Amino acid sequence: MGQVTVIRVGVLGAKGKVGRAICEAVEAAPDLELVAQVDAGDPIETFVDTRTQVVVDFTNPDVVMGNLEFLVANRIHAVVGTTGFDDTRLAQVQRWVTEQPGVGVLIAPNFAIGAVLSMRFAEQAARFFDSVEVIELHHPNKLDAPSGTAYRTAALIAAARAKAGRGPSPDATATELDGARGADVDGVRVHSVRLAGLVAHQEVLLGTQGETLTIRHDSIDRNSFAPGVLLGVREIGTRPGLTVGIDPLLDL
Amino acid sequence: MGQVTVIRVGVLGAKGKVGRAICEAVEAAPDLELVAQVDAGDPIETFVDTRTQVVVDFTNPDVVMGNLEFLVANRIHAVVGTTGFDDTRLAQVQRWVTEQPGVGVLIAPNFAIGAVLSMRFAEQAARFFDSVEVIELHHPNKLDAPSGTAYRTAALIAAARAKAGRGPSPDATATELDGARGADVDGVRVHSVRLAGLVAHQEVLLGTQGETLTIRHDSIDRNSFAPGVLLGVREIGTRPGLTVGIDPLLDL
Amino acid sequence: MGQVTVIRVGVLGAKGKVGRAICEAVEAAPDLELVAQVDAGDPIETFVDTRTQVVVDFTNPDVVMGNLEFLVANRIHAVVGTTGFDDTRLAQVQRWVTEQPGVGVLIAPNFAIGAVLSMRFAEQAARFFDSVEVIELHHPNKLDAPSGTAYRTAALIAAARAKAGRGPSPDATATELDGARGADVDGVRVHSVRLAGLVAHQEVLLGTQGETLTIRHDSIDRNSFAPGVLLGVREIGTRPGLTVGIDPLLDL
Amino acid sequence: MGQVTVIRVGVLGAKGKVGRAICEAVEAAPDLELVAQVDAGDPIETFVDTRTQVVVDFTNPDVVMGNLEFLVANRIHAVVGTTGFDDTRLAQVQRWVTEQPGVGVLIAPNFAIGAVLSMRFAEQAARFFDSVEVIELHHPNKLDAPSGTAYRTAALIAAARAKAGRGPSPDATATELDGARGADVDGVRVHSVRLAGLVAHQEVLLGTQGETLTIRHDSIDRNSFAPGVLLGVREIGTRPGLTVGIDPLLDL
Repeated sequence: MGQVTVIRVGVLGAKGKVGRAICEAVEAAPDLELVAQVDAGDPIETFVDTRTQVVVDFTNPDVVMGNLEFLVANRIHAVVGTTGFDDTRLAQVQRWVTEQPGVGVLIAPNFAIGAVLSMRFAEQAARFFDSVEVIELHHPNKLDAPSGTAYRTAALIAAARAKAGRGPSPDATATELDGARGADVDGVRVHSVRLAGLVAHQEVLLGTQGETLTIRHDSIDRNSFAPGVLLGVREIGTRPGLTVGIDPLLDL
Repeated sequence: MGQVTVIRVGVLGAKGKVGRAICEAVEAAPDLELVAQVDAGDPIETFVDTRTQVVVDFTNPDVVMGNLEFLVANRIHAVVGTTGFDDTRLAQVQRWVTEQPGVGVLIAPNFAIGAVLSMRFAEQAARFFDSVEVIELHHPNKLDAPSGTAYRTAALIAAARAKAGRGPSPDATATELDGARGADVDGVRVHSVRLAGLVAHQEVLLGTQGETLTIRHDSIDRNSFAPGVLLGVREIGTRPGLTVGIDPLLDL
Repeated sequence: MGQVTVIRVGVLGAKGKVGRAICEAVEAAPDLELVAQVDAGDPIETFVDTRTQVVVDFTNPDVVMGNLEFLVANRIHAVVGTTGFDDTRLAQVQRWVTEQPGVGVLIAPNFAIGAVLSMRFAEQAARFFDSVEVIELHHPNKLDAPSGTAYRTAALIAAARAKAGRGPSPDATATELDGARGADVDGVRVHSVRLAGLVAHQEVLLGTQGETLTIRHDSIDRNSFAPGVLLGVREIGTRPGLTVGIDPLLDL
Repeated sequence: MGQVTVIRVGVLGAKGKVGRAICEAVEAAPDLELVAQVDAGDPIETFVDTRTQVVVDFTNPDVVMGNLEFLVANRIHAVVGTTGFDDTRLAQVQRWVTEQPGVGVLIAPNFAIGAVLSMRFAEQAARFFDSVEVIELHHPNKLDAPSGTAYRTAALIAAARAKAGRGPSPDATATELDGARGADVDGVRVHSVRLAGLVAHQEVLLGTQGETLTIRHDSIDRNSFAPGVLLGVREIGTRPGLTVGIDPLLDL
């Protein structure tokens, strides 16, 4: 594959649970080098001193804006999993990157590639099938039903079908024991299973005459964000400006 | 395997849709011989003339009792899929077979071996897991939700758990979109999916710490009764008296 | 939805098994009108007389080229499932449509939308996961293993991974019972299950740290081509020129 | 449920990884009380002093026999997950328990209830279906293919079919890419998938005309032994003598 240029990576929030997992993932990747780990109390200038090219930020809403202002000003790319970005914050980050052409910032609420892909595939496929339903399955300690992901998936499916002029899924049910047919999210039925021994799983079922297509995502580990973060680290250098969500990196 | 004794089989209701399928299945089985086909208007004495050993009856509630009275009196075993057997009718058949020791009659509402096995396995496993839920999936023309089979499966599971002193499946749901958590059948959650491209499917999910067990039954053909009927034909000669349901034949 | 323009549809090979299924599907669709059915011996000019807008051709390699020459010359769009199109034939059809701007011809080897989508999704997702394997499951009368579809799916996956610089899926197997790890198609493992009670099914499993994505396609009916044919009928009027495969119609 | 008698439980090897998990599980169970934790160097007499009723032993082959001799002599029941029990050792334990009527010892190589149940169900169902195949799916660091469990499952299935006079699963494969049809274990096809993101999973597929039955076991956590150990703790007091494997406790 010829000579590989190694990317110099730094981590902000390096001592947190997520930060440590990212440090490990970076160190395990042959094309990445972990050159700086910064946590609360450490000087952020370390990233400049170590000529860091991309910083991963999993910190908290209180400090993330200050971090980003510094990183962009110093022409360091950023991959951000910290939460709390509303429109005002996104607009501010947009102004900063506009002033520093060539610098890229990726802000994503969900780095699980499988989850993002399965939502996108469900959305793409939705208009070609007569019927679509969603089953999400989680551990029994989950507080909400359906899950946020299932809610969003169903809404995307419903919007795609509406746009294509697709009517509702056929359903001849005349006698229903209350709740059997699941919840109704914009006309898409969503079923929530809660079971000991599960973590986080989702299945989108699409059906038409004689055939069905099932898109299933299983997540059994809170580290399932790592591959998505590394994808961001590898790609952000070639995507100047602000990118929201990892979808654009997936070239779908 | 040495010499195989071929069983001489007759079919009542031989020109009906189900009857024709059974005739085909009997003819395809090397250990069975189709010696008589009788339909409305044909003389039932044919079975005696052809020395039929076992008759399969898929006729209708109006004629089945007369058929059985004749068959038992003539010491011919019977495998019956005809519906409409209430306690009174079963008691009558019981009296007939008691008067003819050695003659066996099998009356079963469901000959799908996979369905019967999966119900039985679910019942056996139910008390060893913290959580149990049922998902049934059918074509969108089905009128009732949940399906009768899912209803019965959930009731069997609930009874097995109650008997073992098992409490309800854990569930921390605090916020629920109406219907998301399915229907409640004796404390067991049941979810009904209706999807074009499906026929009749059921999944029982059982979970405990770190592991899950899933028992899934898929039926894609109305002929799925045939293997169960043949099993009955082969076994009924060694099971004198009245047998209800194919469960006892499965030696579970 | 405002006023819907109904498309006038004709069928060539209308008395064949597939042709009859397509006639039924067209008649059942509110936005399509079946205006002409032509089979061997019937005059093809019927399509002109009936002002047919789109003709579906499921005939045979001997007559399909003559059919297409006539249809394109008469500015009738065509949706073709007939087999036997090699490069020479495709080039000939291309010349015909070039001479009749605005006329569209769709030639597709596979109209099962679910199969085409699942192959495409597998190809798109392949480069984002450490591991990919394919399981295909068919009825036990199938002669070849793996199936042609599984072969093609694995080859597409392998090509997508090679293009992205992805290495082989990790595999520490040191002791293998011959065949356990499946067949090797361009470095992608493919497993073929043959089971009574199945029809045609395929599962692509993709995995990375802590998460997996599964894309499953189930086909239980030979009529699963109908929705894809209707999609072609609806779309070909707006896609002048030659289109090969239904993929372009899916806008992926 | 009336008054519940709490069982007084001790753990041997309490500081090991497995031992700690068992201590936690015992403490979390309302009907069990953790009264003694013993590790290397601690006096085993502690169990007598604390009036322990059942001891769980996950230690090592070097010390387990001494432990058992002491426990049985002191009329304390034992649940043992330590490995290395050959026929000689089992015979010795048998002699000890024979001398102490009423004392129960359970020695099991596998405490995962789901795994044991799925093997047993597969064995029971095997003779009723034309076809059976096994798919096992594991993380990519596994050294052997197929897994030991899949090997054992296939052998049990093959034996059950042979006993019932069932021939081999039908298979018309004429052209096979090497390995596609999996490994052959006593005539049962076994397929081994190795995929990042998986832990330990197994699927037994059984099929006959028009229907299939699938028994799937998923294990995503090394703690999946805990529920089986607790089952043993609760049951062993009522099962005097030596019990090998948890199967007898499942009353199948």
